[in-house]
Amino acid sequence: MSRSSRRLVPRRVLWPVAILLFVAAPLPLWAAGDSPETTSLFLVLAGMLVGAKLLGELCERLGTPAVLGELLAGVILGPSLLGLVPTGTGFAAETVELLAGLGVVLLLFEVGLETDLKAMVKVGGAAAAVAVVGVALPFAGGYLFWQFWPHPLVTDPAASTITAIFIGATLTATSVGITARVLGDLGWMQSSEARIVLGAAVIDDIVGLVILSIVGVLATGGAVAPLGMLKILALAVGFLVIAVLVGNRTMPTVMDLVGLMRARGVLAALVFAFVLCLAALATFAGSAMIIGAFAGGLILASTRHHEEIEQAMSPVAAIFAPLFFVKVGAALDLSLLDPRAPGASTILMAALVLTLVAIVGKVLAGWAAPWSAFDRLTVGVGMVPRGEVGLIFADLGRRTGVLSHELFGAVVLVVMATTFIAPLVLKFRLQHRTPVAT
Amino acid sequence: MSRSSRRLVPRRVLWPVAILLFVAAPLPLWAAGDSPETTSLFLVLAGMLVGAKLLGELCERLGTPAVLGELLAGVILGPSLLGLVPTGTGFAAETVELLAGLGVVLLLFEVGLETDLKAMVKVGGAAAAVAVVGVALPFAGGYLFWQFWPHPLVTDPAASTITAIFIGATLTATSVGITARVLGDLGWMQSSEARIVLGAAVIDDIVGLVILSIVGVLATGGAVAPLGMLKILALAVGFLVIAVLVGNRTMPTVMDLVGLMRARGVLAALVFAFVLCLAALATFAGSAMIIGAFAGGLILASTRHHEEIEQAMSPVAAIFAPLFFVKVGAALDLSLLDPRAPGASTILMAALVLTLVAIVGKVLAGWAAPWSAFDRLTVGVGMVPRGEVGLIFADLGRRTGVLSHELFGAVVLVVMATTFIAPLVLKFRLQHRTPVAT
Repeated sequence: MSRSSRRLVPRRVLWPVAILLFVAAPLPLWAAGDSPETTSLFLVLAGMLVGAKLLGELCERLGTPAVLGELLAGVILGPSLLGLVPTGTGFAAETVELLAGLGVVLLLFEVGLETDLKAMVKVGGAAAAVAVVGVALPFAGGYLFWQFWPHPLVTDPAASTITAIFIGATLTATSVGITARVLGDLGWMQSSEARIVLGAAVIDDIVGLVILSIVGVLATGGAVAPLGMLKILALAVGFLVIAVLVGNRTMPTVMDLVGLMRARGVLAALVFAFVLCLAALATFAGSAMIIGAFAGGLILASTRHHEEIEQAMSPVAAIFAPLFFVKVGAALDLSLLDPRAPGASTILMAALVLTLVAIVGKVLAGWAAPWSAFDRLTVGVGMVPRGEVGLIFADLGRRTGVLSHELFGAVVLVVMATTFIAPLVLKFRLQHRTPVAT
Repeated sequence: MSRSSRRLVPRRVLWPVAILLFVAAPLPLWAAGDSPETTSLFLVLAGMLVGAKLLGELCERLGTPAVLGELLAGVILGPSLLGLVPTGTGFAAETVELLAGLGVVLLLFEVGLETDLKAMVKVGGAAAAVAVVGVALPFAGGYLFWQFWPHPLVTDPAASTITAIFIGATLTATSVGITARVLGDLGWMQSSEARIVLGAAVIDDIVGLVILSIVGVLATGGAVAPLGMLKILALAVGFLVIAVLVGNRTMPTVMDLVGLMRARGVLAALVFAFVLCLAALATFAGSAMIIGAFAGGLILASTRHHEEIEQAMSPVAAIFAPLFFVKVGAALDLSLLDPRAPGASTILMAALVLTLVAIVGKVLAGWAAPWSAFDRLTVGVGMVPRGEVGLIFADLGRRTGVLSHELFGAVVLVVMATTFIAPLVLKFRLQHRTPVAT
């Protein structure tokens, strides 16, 4: 194969090129135009992407989700080990932060775009029951554990309560992508189990965001009056309802017009601009960029062009999203997890208990809809991986200071553990079964 | 059409969404995570893209190249009028500059990827003759005009010589894309005229880059010893020859391996990293990022995967490249071109004369290969549009200070005029002819 592809570049072409490029050898005018900062930033980004994709591929081959490999690449490239990923407040660090943020926005946009609301409504009852139990149990477990477990990491009781709520909230999310991939690989995508898991995961995300939002108000404002909270709620809800209602009514027509446009690359550029706009508008309404991006995906999913949009945006997301996971991995301080370090045993113990809470809570949710017939263990285990969404929450906790450096490490370990274990158990469970057609 | 697409979102789906999103209303935790700078930057980028694409589409509809509309959007959004595009040294300005730079790198990568070296070698003789004459005449004209025309804008005679050489060099480039589009639209893509124009345009770009490189050394170093120049030349050539030779031998195999990888989005992320690496490595060798990116495109064009690569990278380029053209348009200071402003008549006169030089020089190049049979006026006019490449050169002149603010304006006007006129003349010429099959 490589032989035939090599023949595509015969020697009589290779040499003229070499000679042309020899003649074309440019000189350092360009160094004046291209700043050294840009050059090193380009290399940092390239290193992050190559590391993420190689370790991601390795994880895929070993049967675990690629996102674990991308996190691992971040740990290796981060300040704990190689120190390639820039941290702090310099231009490089801020730009990487921005591009990683762009990656998360594009990721949530893709999740929204892939959300089939109609199918979700069909499995509505069972999915909603699974989602509610799958949110309530891990939330309660995480909250109670952190609130009442004697731990030396936090001394301020008020901060401890907020942190406990935040930990509970982080355990509520389910990553749609990972389970979907496993079910797809094993040919279970059309089963009722898959529909329930995917429907419940979407409801999960939304409920988790609500809880986190409330924690956010608790964390930032000192004394939160109920009336003030209601006002913020009304503003945010107003924005979202208007965005989706207006979007669902106007965007099909707008996208039809875009489809008629002739200029090259117009779809990709305008969809990207639309996502940026919704992300920015969401923050104006006191909401989060990722909610705006998710709403943008929901809106465009209802247009006739959603496949074309998905095709155009997936390479863009594939380039920027790994930067986020590498950045999160780089924020993991390995020295804190060294068993000889003071407090390391506390963090590792906390991570272990929270992992058990995270797994048991979701698995039990599989038994939440007794009236509906499906394999309860498959649905329960399918809800376990926290994946991308858990990491977005953890990163937010770290940036707002609700999660200390140590706790951030523990939560990332929990996310990694759930993401690692679930696909293995799922494969083991489904290997010798056949899905019941629905 | 819009009626049927509206039915895709029936009310029974719309309302659950609205209710879900109402429940999901998030609160300003997120505002803490999403900085106001990021929010306003997102809006600026969205505004630049929407402006570029709408005016680009308008230009397409009027039969002129879309790049003119993107430039015009920059003029309107720039500090001369609306002031949306950030300038100076803030975070927003630096980030826009970086993303625009990324756009140029991706653009040159695409040009490299679309360069069919084998077809170029076939029309070699005639294309080379057309290219050489098409470089020599505009260069000589531009140089002589600026060197010997009495003008009040530059007083330092040494600077004037360097500037004259730079102006000449900027007039040498030909934009492949614009003529290719017109010829394609009229069904002339398989004609020998098209092959000669496209082949000559590639040679043009390379020769133009050589001249600019030499000017760069003249501009940055005061006293340039011939031996020092030779050393820089050797370094840069060494890098390029090695990059293309090593790349053409290794990348087909590497891309075959990438093609076997299973992780999602791996092709887009790794190709992007490859382009960033080559761009960065080019600057280390004393060369330009865009040369590295162009070399990267040439290398990947020789792999079996080049169509897949093109498909994945074209939306990414479509998102970032317009940022460059908008930024160049924003750098155009309209007040300098106001006929009542002092010196405006000089600039406009210079732009007019240089436009004539730029047009006549390229049109005459059509007669450069008397041994070969083709429509000489078509080839000559086809070489006229300077387009993207001319703008990259002009922007470089502005950033390195070789072109003053005023001269930058004049050169951008020349690029715009040639880009505007050529497609109109070409269409008029070819409308009632049929290509001779080759």
